[in-house]
Amino acid sequence: MKAVLFAGDGTVSVESVAEPIVVDPGDAIVRVRRAAVCGTDLHAVAHGEHLPRGSVLGHEFVGEVVGTGPAVQGHTVGDLVVGADFTACGTCWWCRRGDHWECPQRRFFGTGSAYGPPLAGSQAEFVRVPFADTVLRPVPAGIGLDAAVFLGDTLATGYAAVRRAGLTPGDTVVVLGGGPVGQLTSLAAQACGAGTVVVVEPVDARRELAAREGAVVADPAGARATVAGLTDGRGADAVIDAVGGPRGLDTAFTLVRRRGTIVSVGVHTEPEFALPVARAFADELTLRFAIGDLMRDGEALVALVASGVLDPTVVATQTVPLDDVPDAYRAMAARRTLKSLIAT
Amino acid sequence: MKAVLFAGDGTVSVESVAEPIVVDPGDAIVRVRRAAVCGTDLHAVAHGEHLPRGSVLGHEFVGEVVGTGPAVQGHTVGDLVVGADFTACGTCWWCRRGDHWECPQRRFFGTGSAYGPPLAGSQAEFVRVPFADTVLRPVPAGIGLDAAVFLGDTLATGYAAVRRAGLTPGDTVVVLGGGPVGQLTSLAAQACGAGTVVVVEPVDARRELAAREGAVVADPAGARATVAGLTDGRGADAVIDAVGGPRGLDTAFTLVRRRGTIVSVGVHTEPEFALPVARAFADELTLRFAIGDLMRDGEALVALVASGVLDPTVVATQTVPLDDVPDAYRAMAARRTLKSLIAT
Amino acid sequence: MKAVLFAGDGTVSVESVAEPIVVDPGDAIVRVRRAAVCGTDLHAVAHGEHLPRGSVLGHEFVGEVVGTGPAVQGHTVGDLVVGADFTACGTCWWCRRGDHWECPQRRFFGTGSAYGPPLAGSQAEFVRVPFADTVLRPVPAGIGLDAAVFLGDTLATGYAAVRRAGLTPGDTVVVLGGGPVGQLTSLAAQACGAGTVVVVEPVDARRELAAREGAVVADPAGARATVAGLTDGRGADAVIDAVGGPRGLDTAFTLVRRRGTIVSVGVHTEPEFALPVARAFADELTLRFAIGDLMRDGEALVALVASGVLDPTVVATQTVPLDDVPDAYRAMAARRTLKSLIAT
Amino acid sequence: MKAVLFAGDGTVSVESVAEPIVVDPGDAIVRVRRAAVCGTDLHAVAHGEHLPRGSVLGHEFVGEVVGTGPAVQGHTVGDLVVGADFTACGTCWWCRRGDHWECPQRRFFGTGSAYGPPLAGSQAEFVRVPFADTVLRPVPAGIGLDAAVFLGDTLATGYAAVRRAGLTPGDTVVVLGGGPVGQLTSLAAQACGAGTVVVVEPVDARRELAAREGAVVADPAGARATVAGLTDGRGADAVIDAVGGPRGLDTAFTLVRRRGTIVSVGVHTEPEFALPVARAFADELTLRFAIGDLMRDGEALVALVASGVLDPTVVATQTVPLDDVPDAYRAMAARRTLKSLIAT
Repeated sequence: MKAVLFAGDGTVSVESVAEPIVVDPGDAIVRVRRAAVCGTDLHAVAHGEHLPRGSVLGHEFVGEVVGTGPAVQGHTVGDLVVGADFTACGTCWWCRRGDHWECPQRRFFGTGSAYGPPLAGSQAEFVRVPFADTVLRPVPAGIGLDAAVFLGDTLATGYAAVRRAGLTPGDTVVVLGGGPVGQLTSLAAQACGAGTVVVVEPVDARRELAAREGAVVADPAGARATVAGLTDGRGADAVIDAVGGPRGLDTAFTLVRRRGTIVSVGVHTEPEFALPVARAFADELTLRFAIGDLMRDGEALVALVASGVLDPTVVATQTVPLDDVPDAYRAMAARRTLKSLIAT
Repeated sequence: MKAVLFAGDGTVSVESVAEPIVVDPGDAIVRVRRAAVCGTDLHAVAHGEHLPRGSVLGHEFVGEVVGTGPAVQGHTVGDLVVGADFTACGTCWWCRRGDHWECPQRRFFGTGSAYGPPLAGSQAEFVRVPFADTVLRPVPAGIGLDAAVFLGDTLATGYAAVRRAGLTPGDTVVVLGGGPVGQLTSLAAQACGAGTVVVVEPVDARRELAAREGAVVADPAGARATVAGLTDGRGADAVIDAVGGPRGLDTAFTLVRRRGTIVSVGVHTEPEFALPVARAFADELTLRFAIGDLMRDGEALVALVASGVLDPTVVATQTVPLDDVPDAYRAMAARRTLKSLIAT
Repeated sequence: MKAVLFAGDGTVSVESVAEPIVVDPGDAIVRVRRAAVCGTDLHAVAHGEHLPRGSVLGHEFVGEVVGTGPAVQGHTVGDLVVGADFTACGTCWWCRRGDHWECPQRRFFGTGSAYGPPLAGSQAEFVRVPFADTVLRPVPAGIGLDAAVFLGDTLATGYAAVRRAGLTPGDTVVVLGGGPVGQLTSLAAQACGAGTVVVVEPVDARRELAAREGAVVADPAGARATVAGLTDGRGADAVIDAVGGPRGLDTAFTLVRRRGTIVSVGVHTEPEFALPVARAFADELTLRFAIGDLMRDGEALVALVASGVLDPTVVATQTVPLDDVPDAYRAMAARRTLKSLIAT
Repeated sequence: MKAVLFAGDGTVSVESVAEPIVVDPGDAIVRVRRAAVCGTDLHAVAHGEHLPRGSVLGHEFVGEVVGTGPAVQGHTVGDLVVGADFTACGTCWWCRRGDHWECPQRRFFGTGSAYGPPLAGSQAEFVRVPFADTVLRPVPAGIGLDAAVFLGDTLATGYAAVRRAGLTPGDTVVVLGGGPVGQLTSLAAQACGAGTVVVVEPVDARRELAAREGAVVADPAGARATVAGLTDGRGADAVIDAVGGPRGLDTAFTLVRRRGTIVSVGVHTEPEFALPVARAFADELTLRFAIGDLMRDGEALVALVASGVLDPTVVATQTVPLDDVPDAYRAMAARRTLKSLIAT
């Protein structure tokens, strides 16, 4: 089958590789109908330290079940399913609580050994899905392929951030970053009770998209004044950092009100962050980190998309065939596109 | 001043009465700018048993503070304010919890002795407001008079119902009744995370309004099939009864799913309801009653309206001067209008 | 093997029956070490309408796994486990939410067809457990057999009631009924933040036990005064009905404060209850029904017992061999004993 | 009147000063019956940078109302009351939410300008209490003076930490520090649903007290092994830091499990803390800061103490007259005593 592989030196290529087969009794094989390119893929390819050359990339996918191991009970051949972006066993102490990210059996598709043992990715014609009863979820008739492919990572991440923020209806929520996750965080916050969502983003086109989709927008230089104007100078009830690194957190602390909450879904690989602890103590702040989880939140995510409350496809710039994925990586890295879907 | 009075025998008249004055140190006098006619007014006038002839009617109002007693700290002359529809002291055991409806000092404007000692109503040029620091709330610049007048009762009630239902994002919520409260309950549910809201209502025009405002609609005969179709036959996660009486509750029990929640904000004056207890037990149901409370929920209500998430004026049919209020009562009683506002 | 069977006409007998074997791939066979007699057993035997003669009785058990079907992943031969009192598939819409009682695959051990298709009970040397990965839970070293046997029903029920009541720390909680469930509800409420727990019970010895175990006690005639005295006349924040039938609910409504919560875990088979709806509306009451669920709450239950916070064995009157179980049924029915455990 | 004053150079003295009088209409004057010495007092005196020489010290007090300004409604002369350790207006945006610590009118008794404009303290025969309707709370008959004096700060702080941790019943909670706040945090956690509380403390006598009062104990070197042993190696569900400074937080991060919560109630004056952000992100941690608030939590605190669930006096080493307070400061600073109460 065709698949997108890491070709070393920050590049990807489309190659022919062997089709995956059922290895464990809980496996399913999925014929991928829609995959996508994510910032995480760009990061993995650019850095490459956890990623052996030749790894199949990608962790977002919708497709049809074409094979199942003998222990799979919830899915049968022909089912249209969406996958979480990582695996979990479904039965351990963590999984029973719904904390699948903490499962010792976690493997993240298509990112090498960055988040668990390597597992071939979904930018391919077929993908093997361990623990299929837990990792896969049916796609109902009302959700198209282009929307469904967002359920497993981008939308799940935005939603996790919003839930973790513990909003009261009417709250003013700042979202830092107008990339795909930031945009869908804005939509999730609006769907879940926010009064005003302020998207802070330096790129004009991304601010315009956020504004079209219901947010107030600000560039980083103007964020503080915008938020102060909306909140009688208090600051935001919640700030969701979809940027990552110290920059996102630093900004978050300048925008959050006293007794407010910061949730970071941006990636943090630096060992330490200089937390402004005297202020955090004096103002009773809360700082939380969150990772999306389709397995935990799938019911809500599916309902919000199927009912039309939320349309995640607004961040999809284009849909390309597998052969064009290397171009799509380059366009996204250059910020010429926001998000590329892959039709296989 | 002019005021709308109960004239006995189910009728109202506009008469000249003395202007109210500060009686207690915590009182404010408000020059009414916008009042409204509510189903509760129609009910009080039609039955009349708690309502002395000559009572000033009405409990919804927005206006300017024109006088304050010496103990009022939070409001000054000239402030534009909206009032809750009942009073509460702000300092007792109940008020400290935010349960103002349970305050022993509760008095409901313009309804005689139905819900506490009588207190002259707001369908008048001026109204006296006891415990003004607690009962009144500033109206921010971004909210017009026509929207603000809904904050004190109709929207507060819909919002209280939605909060009491404890929604998870994506939930399917049924609202029974497409009157003003039902319509704003639908908007509040959509703003607070519902996936699909189904408004059940027999009157075509009310269903059309609900549909225009984002709900799925059904007439009572088709409600069960509509809800089943949306929920794989399970029933609604929450049913909010904005009809009242045994009819609303009976219908609610036919539409709610196992382990679901029924919240009733419709009025119940009958002493007993035949609760289907074997089913309620076997299906682990929850039944809750709720009353709107601007004093508790005002921050959220103001934020949702000021931000444009919610526009309560969609239920306003017309705005009339005080002299035309008797006609407005008749038109609402005949269901020719949905809700009449009063400009004074 | 030996088992306790329904012998018709309100009686039970100990007979020899065939040992259960694995039927479905998810089954486990458990060698019962401790079972118990429950009020539900007495009820089933006394009425008998859902119970074919010859049914193996009982639904509480702790024991060792002695056999597993090929799909069982979480348990192996030799494990000490406690079972929920009913089965659930673990994968359906309801089970994914943790609402196992609503699972279409629900079967209740040892009660005939009262709560789903019949399933042989646990008052026997061996019991077959469908969906063993979901229904069984390991018993950690710190919990003895006599305590563990309460996890599956009696304690799970009390705990479910307390959680459903949504306590704020310091709340005054009334428990109606000092039987085994009422007593463990009192312990669960004390463990989960109640300030004062009042157990209302007519039988002296049961009141004495409740008082010894930390509750304030009252007989039914004195309950109202006791609760009023503890709450400045307001009534209880929450009332948990562990009696069932209309009597429990009627009493609950006399003891709950305005805006308070009633949770009923007593059994209700009557089709209707005359709910005092005008009062429930005027006072914004909440009425909820709840059923215990070890599968959902097992982690908390195990932790509370293993840490010594809660000792459920205080309600165990005696431990008898299988041959003496018919006597134990008679003694419990006559209220000479509170709860009999069975050592097999 | 006699009062304990800051005498400069890290010392205190007892002097005669003018009695306070009503200044603002909302003031009350309280005849102090019981005050106490707190670690915050020791800190203020030792550092002294915010504390003018001659300041009346102390912020914990119970006493009788002996005078009220004309706007005080909830208290009358002769009432026995306990005070919060800081003031709040009761009517602003923050106070209406229950976030009194954030009130712009905040002043902290007896600590100079450290936490707002200076306000004379309570280690004196009389104390002036601004916003008395908000700051004071009646002490019910069932609570003695020695217990009541803990409500305003030490117990309120422990309780705030526990509530902020969002416990699920049965959780394993670590409390760092066995000083007065740590000890009462342990009691509050036990009262509010914790399964096991582990108090980590280097001083033997403090560990012994914690153990006597229901906690598992560990010295700092052994904490990690103790917690691992109790949690199958996962770490604590919640860690409450009652130590403060970077040391407390550093330890907290070594003891918390993945997806767990750290709450810090220890004081942080250092501008930055080196947060282990890569781990916090990968493990989805939550870090919160909390400050006690009798005004918000008084109802629960009073109920837990009045019902006997919690006895805060276990941390009281001695009760001394005002003249002996300088000795008491020295003894506490040398860790010869845990907590000294003052009878005036």
